[in-house]
Amino acid sequence: MAPGPIRTALKVDLDKPAHEQEYLHNRWHPDIPFAAKIVPGEAVKVECIDWTGGQIKNDDSADDVKNCDLSRVHYLSGPFEIEGAEPGDILVVEIQDVQPFDERPWGFTAVFDKKNGGGFLDEHYPQAAKAIWDFEGIFCSSRHIPHVRFPGLIHPGIMGCAPSPEILAEWTRRESELVEFNTLDRVVANLPEPKNIHAGTATGDLKAKIGAEGARTIPGRPEHGGNCDIKNLSRGSKTYLPVHVPGAKFSVGDLHFSQGDGEISFCGAIEMAGIITFKFSLMKGGIENLDMKSPIFIPGPVEPQFGPGRMLTFEGFSVDENGKQHYMDVTVAYRQTCFRVFEYLKRYGYSGGEFSLPASFYKK
Amino acid sequence: MAPGPIRTALKVDLDKPAHEQEYLHNRWHPDIPFAAKIVPGEAVKVECIDWTGGQIKNDDSADDVKNCDLSRVHYLSGPFEIEGAEPGDILVVEIQDVQPFDERPWGFTAVFDKKNGGGFLDEHYPQAAKAIWDFEGIFCSSRHIPHVRFPGLIHPGIMGCAPSPEILAEWTRRESELVEFNTLDRVVANLPEPKNIHAGTATGDLKAKIGAEGARTIPGRPEHGGNCDIKNLSRGSKTYLPVHVPGAKFSVGDLHFSQGDGEISFCGAIEMAGIITFKFSLMKGGIENLDMKSPIFIPGPVEPQFGPGRMLTFEGFSVDENGKQHYMDVTVAYRQTCFRVFEYLKRYGYSGGEFSLPASFYKK
Amino acid sequence: MAPGPIRTALKVDLDKPAHEQEYLHNRWHPDIPFAAKIVPGEAVKVECIDWTGGQIKNDDSADDVKNCDLSRVHYLSGPFEIEGAEPGDILVVEIQDVQPFDERPWGFTAVFDKKNGGGFLDEHYPQAAKAIWDFEGIFCSSRHIPHVRFPGLIHPGIMGCAPSPEILAEWTRRESELVEFNTLDRVVANLPEPKNIHAGTATGDLKAKIGAEGARTIPGRPEHGGNCDIKNLSRGSKTYLPVHVPGAKFSVGDLHFSQGDGEISFCGAIEMAGIITFKFSLMKGGIENLDMKSPIFIPGPVEPQFGPGRMLTFEGFSVDENGKQHYMDVTVAYRQTCFRVFEYLKRYGYSGGEFSLPASFYKK
Amino acid sequence: MAPGPIRTALKVDLDKPAHEQEYLHNRWHPDIPFAAKIVPGEAVKVECIDWTGGQIKNDDSADDVKNCDLSRVHYLSGPFEIEGAEPGDILVVEIQDVQPFDERPWGFTAVFDKKNGGGFLDEHYPQAAKAIWDFEGIFCSSRHIPHVRFPGLIHPGIMGCAPSPEILAEWTRRESELVEFNTLDRVVANLPEPKNIHAGTATGDLKAKIGAEGARTIPGRPEHGGNCDIKNLSRGSKTYLPVHVPGAKFSVGDLHFSQGDGEISFCGAIEMAGIITFKFSLMKGGIENLDMKSPIFIPGPVEPQFGPGRMLTFEGFSVDENGKQHYMDVTVAYRQTCFRVFEYLKRYGYSGGEFSLPASFYKK
Repeated sequence: MAPGPIRTALKVDLDKPAHEQEYLHNRWHPDIPFAAKIVPGEAVKVECIDWTGGQIKNDDSADDVKNCDLSRVHYLSGPFEIEGAEPGDILVVEIQDVQPFDERPWGFTAVFDKKNGGGFLDEHYPQAAKAIWDFEGIFCSSRHIPHVRFPGLIHPGIMGCAPSPEILAEWTRRESELVEFNTLDRVVANLPEPKNIHAGTATGDLKAKIGAEGARTIPGRPEHGGNCDIKNLSRGSKTYLPVHVPGAKFSVGDLHFSQGDGEISFCGAIEMAGIITFKFSLMKGGIENLDMKSPIFIPGPVEPQFGPGRMLTFEGFSVDENGKQHYMDVTVAYRQTCFRVFEYLKRYGYSGGEFSLPASFYKK
Repeated sequence: MAPGPIRTALKVDLDKPAHEQEYLHNRWHPDIPFAAKIVPGEAVKVECIDWTGGQIKNDDSADDVKNCDLSRVHYLSGPFEIEGAEPGDILVVEIQDVQPFDERPWGFTAVFDKKNGGGFLDEHYPQAAKAIWDFEGIFCSSRHIPHVRFPGLIHPGIMGCAPSPEILAEWTRRESELVEFNTLDRVVANLPEPKNIHAGTATGDLKAKIGAEGARTIPGRPEHGGNCDIKNLSRGSKTYLPVHVPGAKFSVGDLHFSQGDGEISFCGAIEMAGIITFKFSLMKGGIENLDMKSPIFIPGPVEPQFGPGRMLTFEGFSVDENGKQHYMDVTVAYRQTCFRVFEYLKRYGYSGGEFSLPASFYKK
Repeated sequence: MAPGPIRTALKVDLDKPAHEQEYLHNRWHPDIPFAAKIVPGEAVKVECIDWTGGQIKNDDSADDVKNCDLSRVHYLSGPFEIEGAEPGDILVVEIQDVQPFDERPWGFTAVFDKKNGGGFLDEHYPQAAKAIWDFEGIFCSSRHIPHVRFPGLIHPGIMGCAPSPEILAEWTRRESELVEFNTLDRVVANLPEPKNIHAGTATGDLKAKIGAEGARTIPGRPEHGGNCDIKNLSRGSKTYLPVHVPGAKFSVGDLHFSQGDGEISFCGAIEMAGIITFKFSLMKGGIENLDMKSPIFIPGPVEPQFGPGRMLTFEGFSVDENGKQHYMDVTVAYRQTCFRVFEYLKRYGYSGGEFSLPASFYKK
Repeated sequence: MAPGPIRTALKVDLDKPAHEQEYLHNRWHPDIPFAAKIVPGEAVKVECIDWTGGQIKNDDSADDVKNCDLSRVHYLSGPFEIEGAEPGDILVVEIQDVQPFDERPWGFTAVFDKKNGGGFLDEHYPQAAKAIWDFEGIFCSSRHIPHVRFPGLIHPGIMGCAPSPEILAEWTRRESELVEFNTLDRVVANLPEPKNIHAGTATGDLKAKIGAEGARTIPGRPEHGGNCDIKNLSRGSKTYLPVHVPGAKFSVGDLHFSQGDGEISFCGAIEMAGIITFKFSLMKGGIENLDMKSPIFIPGPVEPQFGPGRMLTFEGFSVDENGKQHYMDVTVAYRQTCFRVFEYLKRYGYSGGEFSLPASFYKK
């Protein structure tokens, strides 16, 4: 009668290359074979590798960031068959807990090299940089960013159900159009690309099909969510995800110990491998009933409280560093605000290169 | 020995046209004469009219919004001489309380007509609309938006010290350039304009000079703050403002009973006239000491707490209503998210036209 | 159509002796005449004097505390006729705001002389002491307790509906019995006492009857609430009060700027005169439906947040100052904990005599 | 260079009788041998059994509660040698995390039989009762108390450093005196008692000495803390404990998934076995510097937030169930308030026997 431990629905191997692990995948596609089955109402644990699949090491060199193979990232755990889920349903995802692995009590945040990934501030900080964060219970601290310590709000960066073939086709159409008419001097979308795809247990023709059609995992997409990086989707939160294929084919990955309110380096979070405890339920026919166009989120009850006087607010203005004004340009405003925050922090002995840290922190 | 009532440093007349009141002004300029003097350490009350100067009435017609004279808005109370303030100092503004007038326990929010002001969603909601909000202590409710009621986080939308002549010249240069090179089919900045200027007690040549040079009050500007519309600058908050002229020439106005996290109509707040209680202090030489480039803010300790399950989060994606994807376009993403929220709320009987309401609310 | 100011249902005169004001009373009795009428759903303001009826002055001497006439205290505003209220109903009291009078922006806290009132620690602090607190918006500070400043959680100490004759008789029976069998060397209850009673507009035989029968206002009583001193009954709170007589005869008084979690001097709050904004509603037949035996309270959403590290907790043990252990004696434990807190605070330069301050405070 | 897992400083065996495990003990005594050593600054895990040492089973019968051997409880993990700790220091205990064992994701709360332990309400609920709680991440729910589910605030009930011989002698003197002069018809203190003592690795004469002198673990004591049952000593909290013997001899046990603000059954918490992650530091000479008489506590930043309207408050009055009034009797008031809460909850289908649940909960 007594319950045993919470069942682990999917285990990963932290010492094995991600692409050799059958229950991971790095594309969104309706035909990726199920990795495991979960019954609504059951609490289960799901293990996840970090978003680089272990490419980043706990050392003091940023060479691994500089040379990170970005075609081999965002491996997701799943997809899971949620028993009874059908297209048109809403999958309610309750996160009960998220924890690092006991044997890997650390994570990292990184500034990516302008030539490999880059990021929001790569014009100003073009070199790769890395900070390792040690986890001590709810807290983290870093030997690379002294005197900073804060409680994490641990969460998954990516959650979603597989797209239907129709939705997948629409994604490809939309993103191809964006690429086709692009006038910016940068990559604006990554289209389906067979190289280095990993589709779980799929092999042969099926794997080829998934490689040819599968959507990349970097961008979030309205029809299913995906890479949302919402920092408050932590313990006790609920996420309402539309279901588009039989069994839902839910996947999860890209765990963070903490995430800023924006991403000022390519990697705006403290990235980690870890274990997430879920409980799922279904709202049958919920998409039509709620007229749902994209996921809805409700944060949990245990967000760290910092209290008054612990949070400084800087305001953004769309005047760039050359004194040129732009019209209501959020990007310019956010970037300039980052620089003002850096100036402020420099007074405390920090240099710009360290500021891949999350927005909210407090001193030891 | 016993203190009397808190001194009111500036009184307004709610029944008199704003431009006839000597202690109001509607431009930023170093030469606007002082309206009153305040000593650091002294708690004082300052009265403010609403941002339209009383043009909007408590009735059920939006004609006053449609016909609102936008050249006669943003009248600020001040400027105040802060005793001892010199260029290079930081003025620390503590907000002790903000209250509506007893005799005007109501405010308004408005959707501006596309032909008169417009706003973020004016392509979709081109008609003027208005909601009157009745204040009941910390709560507000509206006969125009039934079943909604929430506690306000009352705050001033505009606070700042006067620019120096050099800063003013830089503003004009910057904004003139923006206008000159504008390729958008809309007004991107309002340059100095003598029409309908009000410069307090200034008359004759001085008033003409202020009219010819004075900066408009709509945009916030990094060098002094101004129209920041930060919803958390409520009771107990502290704002650190750079001082650029002798005596600081601090001004305040545009009070809000509540404000959303963004402005989806021209008037994204519940606008009100009211009384703000301040206490000022000075950090001598603070601009250099803090290497301050723009204001810094610390919220107060009495923000309303809603608790888990009372806040829904919708995610933004930069795919527009025609299914066209844009590259990392915050504006598209925010607009589309607004529409999804509207669809969600329509299920509860609301129509789009009512959604000038702030983002956070809870049901009666 | 537009609303005017919120109606003030009852005005007091801060310069007139309390017992000369017709709309105050200092006993609980069903026959005290109505002072005013309030309609459910209407927001109204009610003015209240401080609990001593103005006996304590804003000066630096505690003589007024020492000589305070305790037979002339706890004057309540009311009773109010709540339209439609009948015995068996529940009166829902929503507090929308509580504010000091503009012309009296101060309050006091006092240690009462052991020979006149005394208090929880009067064996150790037998002398009268007083601290005046100046209000600055949501904050208060005192020239008598330097370096302390904190936001208030302003609330009424006393709210209740009049007892029915049967309930009043039960109170008298109960408290007479307590007095009769008392073995402690102290006053354990104050029975009805005609001296210095004030019964609003009642005169002659009616006043005599109320004097002979009326319950004293110091103790709270389960059947109606009364003097509850719950510090969280501030803005936005709801209180559910049983109604025992037609029209409810609701009364209120004893406003506090702030109150500790316990009362370690006779006067455990920062006492003030002020104005409370109410909105009432009725749950018809609610006493039976809820099987209500005594009031129920729900705190409001704007309690000050202090954040982690701002609150020290000391633990209580029932070992007294002579090293004698008592069995699970909360009173001993609480008293000893107070002393430990005093010792702790003395390290910061405070002396015991000042510690009539509320439990939660933070440094300037 | 990379850290491995956090070191587990003490492991327990959930399947072995507590008194056979060498690193547990059930008395406070300076001579209990060290179980392990911990260096200040090091994060370590410490495993703890539940307070009954596994006597309570995950089933639907309360017979185990009825027959619980109360002479074999409160086995503590330790004592730990904290390197460098000397009498006069303060040991700062930071709790970084507390978790149940993966293989034991449940806990219990129990009403003890009036003849075996009893409790605050044993006159009214004399029968043993038990509820099993299943843990799902931060949440718990019980098949024995339907429709209740809430996030835990997991914490240890007991923490303390060993007494010096002088302090131990004072405890015995104090408690012996309490027993000697007791006039109540109940056990008021348990004096040292050799039966069923467990003193870690101590044997022979040493064990006999500890049995003859060792203080029992049920009561908290001012000189060192011990059984404090403060529900907020959860993740991120800090506890300042006086050190009385070389090496501190710190012990911990009696973990709770959640605890009420009071203990209305003998076992007022959801009891569990689990793993606590600590980090220690020392304030050398802190007892004298802080003039510390007993422990001081600072709660952590991740207490669950419930928000307004989720917490009902009932008020206590010292009138007992027979209508007899008592003078300022907190015990009577608290007991009667419990009964009123029970009556309220009965309306939702609960019976009194289930109300061993914590005070704060929210509905599924």
